[in-house]
Amino acid sequence: MKKFAVVLSGCGVYDGAEIHEATLTLLAILKNGGTYDVFAPNINQHHVINHITGEEMKETRNVLVESARIARGKIKDLADFDASSYDILIFPGGFGVAKNLSTLAFDGASCKVDLNMEKAVLDMVKATKPIGALCIAPAVIAKIIQGALVTVGNDEPTIQAIENMGSNHQKATHGEIVVDEAFKIVSTPCYMLDANILQIAEGAENVVKKLMQL
Amino acid sequence: MKKFAVVLSGCGVYDGAEIHEATLTLLAILKNGGTYDVFAPNINQHHVINHITGEEMKETRNVLVESARIARGKIKDLADFDASSYDILIFPGGFGVAKNLSTLAFDGASCKVDLNMEKAVLDMVKATKPIGALCIAPAVIAKIIQGALVTVGNDEPTIQAIENMGSNHQKATHGEIVVDEAFKIVSTPCYMLDANILQIAEGAENVVKKLMQL
Repeated sequence: MKKFAVVLSGCGVYDGAEIHEATLTLLAILKNGGTYDVFAPNINQHHVINHITGEEMKETRNVLVESARIARGKIKDLADFDASSYDILIFPGGFGVAKNLSTLAFDGASCKVDLNMEKAVLDMVKATKPIGALCIAPAVIAKIIQGALVTVGNDEPTIQAIENMGSNHQKATHGEIVVDEAFKIVSTPCYMLDANILQIAEGAENVVKKLMQL
Repeated sequence: MKKFAVVLSGCGVYDGAEIHEATLTLLAILKNGGTYDVFAPNINQHHVINHITGEEMKETRNVLVESARIARGKIKDLADFDASSYDILIFPGGFGVAKNLSTLAFDGASCKVDLNMEKAVLDMVKATKPIGALCIAPAVIAKIIQGALVTVGNDEPTIQAIENMGSNHQKATHGEIVVDEAFKIVSTPCYMLDANILQIAEGAENVVKKLMQL
């Protein structure tokens, strides 16, 4: 039985983890016979966005506390992640990955990455264990692992950023996965495309299934 | 093609809509060939709960604004709900139904119900259109529609409250639905039981499928 560590970046597409991608990743793991623990960094969100207007709200929210909404309270601090306790590491998407787990949304190819995320990813690579990434998350994986092959769908600015990081991009459409056999990275575009929730379920399921085979 | 109105009560099990139930309801609708609009009332949450500690936070959050996180920004004010535009009305659960959409969590059988929720439900009954309810939501439906038959699983205090409202309860377990053929109400326990996300998906799917047949 494969044990997943699922890393969230808040709760809501515009300032945190994308809720459908996160939920459907958890579903796909159980559906395919795996188990999971949920992690998030104990840091403040870059900002809080009103998801109706798209405007910034004058509030401060914590990534770990807000991620706990998706995890129904059962969540661990990403600082305590130990690669030896898990078979697979996976990152659902959402702007939280590009604003809280990294500065990708603001700095592109020269972005900084949360040190606990970076350590978690590099520890898995060192242990030759697979890593999954949905939506925008593959671009941050491509920053941490130079030379990685990932997909974010067909978004040209993000593809350019990935190539400027020294990594490689392969286009993909709804539900399709791209596999980096050397680094054991599986990625899929999800809401980086104009997708519906059924296509998100398909993408999450295909990533999880492939990760279990690697 | 059946058109659903999905009513949310915030974003997070302890003070809003249960995220897995909400997301998997949306998935089940598309999976079975339906479409949906998402609604929530434009009111403040009863309170904000830290989902790690269970403690109240000194914050104010709006139910419509927070529900928009689950709906990815595409959401309507429940005050604007028009029963003639939809085939089916459905309520995912979470404490938000018992704290924001009603006072069930505090007042039990003598609870008050949000006037827009009450109107939406009664308008659907008048139009003989089906209503779905997950988790704790069936208990609020049982308050609005006296004499209704619903399930919340096997939680004795809630069953007692439903009977004190003048409505009827039938026990059910994971994924099982209870159907009130007269009022066209379909309910399932979801996280009112000690469930996993796979069982939530099954419950949501069974409710949605049955609603489409009524």
